[in-house]
Amino acid sequence: MAEIVPPGGIIGILGGGQLGRMLALAAARLGLECHIYCPEADSPAFQVTRRHTVAPYEDREALRRFAESVDAITLEFESIPFETADFVSRIRPLRPSPKALAITQDRLLEKDFCTEAGCRTAPYASVASAGDLAGAVARIGRPAILKTRRFGYDGKGQARIDFGTDLQGAWNVIGGQPAILEGFVPFEREVSVVAARALDGTVAAYDVTENEHRHHILHRSVAPAALEPALAEEALATARRLLAALDYVGVLAIEMFVLPEKTRGPRLLVNELAPRVHNSGHWTLDGAATSQFEQHVRAVAGWPLGATTRHGPVEMINLIGADIEAWLKLAAEPGTALHLYGKAEPRPGRKMGHLTRLLKQS
Amino acid sequence: MAEIVPPGGIIGILGGGQLGRMLALAAARLGLECHIYCPEADSPAFQVTRRHTVAPYEDREALRRFAESVDAITLEFESIPFETADFVSRIRPLRPSPKALAITQDRLLEKDFCTEAGCRTAPYASVASAGDLAGAVARIGRPAILKTRRFGYDGKGQARIDFGTDLQGAWNVIGGQPAILEGFVPFEREVSVVAARALDGTVAAYDVTENEHRHHILHRSVAPAALEPALAEEALATARRLLAALDYVGVLAIEMFVLPEKTRGPRLLVNELAPRVHNSGHWTLDGAATSQFEQHVRAVAGWPLGATTRHGPVEMINLIGADIEAWLKLAAEPGTALHLYGKAEPRPGRKMGHLTRLLKQS
Repeated sequence: MAEIVPPGGIIGILGGGQLGRMLALAAARLGLECHIYCPEADSPAFQVTRRHTVAPYEDREALRRFAESVDAITLEFESIPFETADFVSRIRPLRPSPKALAITQDRLLEKDFCTEAGCRTAPYASVASAGDLAGAVARIGRPAILKTRRFGYDGKGQARIDFGTDLQGAWNVIGGQPAILEGFVPFEREVSVVAARALDGTVAAYDVTENEHRHHILHRSVAPAALEPALAEEALATARRLLAALDYVGVLAIEMFVLPEKTRGPRLLVNELAPRVHNSGHWTLDGAATSQFEQHVRAVAGWPLGATTRHGPVEMINLIGADIEAWLKLAAEPGTALHLYGKAEPRPGRKMGHLTRLLKQS
Repeated sequence: MAEIVPPGGIIGILGGGQLGRMLALAAARLGLECHIYCPEADSPAFQVTRRHTVAPYEDREALRRFAESVDAITLEFESIPFETADFVSRIRPLRPSPKALAITQDRLLEKDFCTEAGCRTAPYASVASAGDLAGAVARIGRPAILKTRRFGYDGKGQARIDFGTDLQGAWNVIGGQPAILEGFVPFEREVSVVAARALDGTVAAYDVTENEHRHHILHRSVAPAALEPALAEEALATARRLLAALDYVGVLAIEMFVLPEKTRGPRLLVNELAPRVHNSGHWTLDGAATSQFEQHVRAVAGWPLGATTRHGPVEMINLIGADIEAWLKLAAEPGTALHLYGKAEPRPGRKMGHLTRLLKQS
């Protein structure tokens, strides 16, 4: 198997949501085809490719046929079962690697990994069982956040432990699964770095992005983040360090907390890694020379990375659930680029699309 | 049938080449699906949609099924048989209209139409038969270009009539079809205006683009064209006048000749209309707020038009035939955006892709 997938080659994508869809659209620009593998028959990514497989992630025979039909494989979300990733990686190159996936699928492994790589995180403790919780709370202090080690996103699988919170209740809220207790961090901003690493180890990072969440879902991203240059440089250096430590290939998103200036100690803490293209990088579709989707495809295909030059200050706003009803008004706004994901049902909390706007230089 | 196709709707596209492919990619951004109709089984546009029909343009039953399965229809090239366009337009809205297609399919009708709309063209005369040619040459003078009325592009179906050229020979070169003789115009530059008209009559034009051909195939486009402001404004006004006169919906490309400053009489002559997205508008994919492909889809779907703001000076270079072999080198150039069309065979003269570069402000 050649390391480089040439034009005309086929990239396999595990997962068929909007990220897979936008990856497939970016691959098409480069003359690459995509084969989408997803258990849901009405996956948004299926609309933009001629090749797809509808099968469970546990179906070895379907996985084998899928893997053998493509030149390299990637994924659009980190909750793909590890066994699935590991299985297909023995047939074709999986980028990022199963190892990177294993670490980022587990909050405890991820935190340990970041610490070992020399990055700072919020204080944390392992909570393997209900019995561990009291001791962990004693060490970390209150308030703190109890999070399942695996498969939480957009605020699911989390419970806040405040001064009066009943510990058994919190344990029940997260479903009594192996967990991690994270110290509450009085952060001033949430930022992220979306960066890519190529097969040859070259790294290209987009400017630090500032993120605003509502109801635990990303609402708005702005690039560049309003950070002092030294902090921005530290954020980018953190991304480079993590990409190298993971021997990563593809786009990685690193969410970070920025603590207030008066804080004693480090002001930049790594919150979470996402081994994939990331919602906070959607502005790159209209605001950068190369989109994060094309960047990821380039890395997965073994191509050189593209330029990450930004066209100017830019904002991205998610269209969640009924927000989509304003589509015609939004489409008429000069300077607003609209991206819709081809999802039929605007359920509450469902990401239906996003918009980006280039902002006036301030 | 609603005038407006909402997100989730389906646009039918007659033709499955790279223009159809890039239209489908643009439609996907807006949450619209495409159904491609094309006689060739390996059409590039098929790779980026899940719906396609392989059938001849004369297959009424296939055309009916295609038209009934979509919400609005457009085309990616003007050589679609008029009968095909007319047939599907009775089932679903065809944008642009069969009338616009009929005019732009025929060089004589097109020239007459431009003249009636108040635009200037090179001197021309109808050549219905071999017997007409001598008289036409006497009126228009030499040198002149003999062109078939229908279905010529990229220099096919043309013969130059110089001072010693044998007229019967020229007539034979173009296959003895109904033709038009055009006076030779000593132009200084070739430019084009790519402009769109919405259902409600709103017009949005991109900046005038300057085009350089090699062997009758577009080699390079640069925007903005190096024109005096008054001439650029005249070019844009010409586009607006033609769009209105055609009662056009969609993107129209108008190729024009610019004559030297010392010319007596008009300096801007309309050369050709293309009732579709156009190679000279490919720079808009990376160089403008809205690409010509999205703009066309917006018009066809009855949406408001997007902003045509340019990010800066920009060039587009076609990758023809073996040019594609440099893909890896081009992919590594910072600031070069690469677009490949998914065509397997790099035959001589075949458009395999293009690249765009934002240029430094001069």
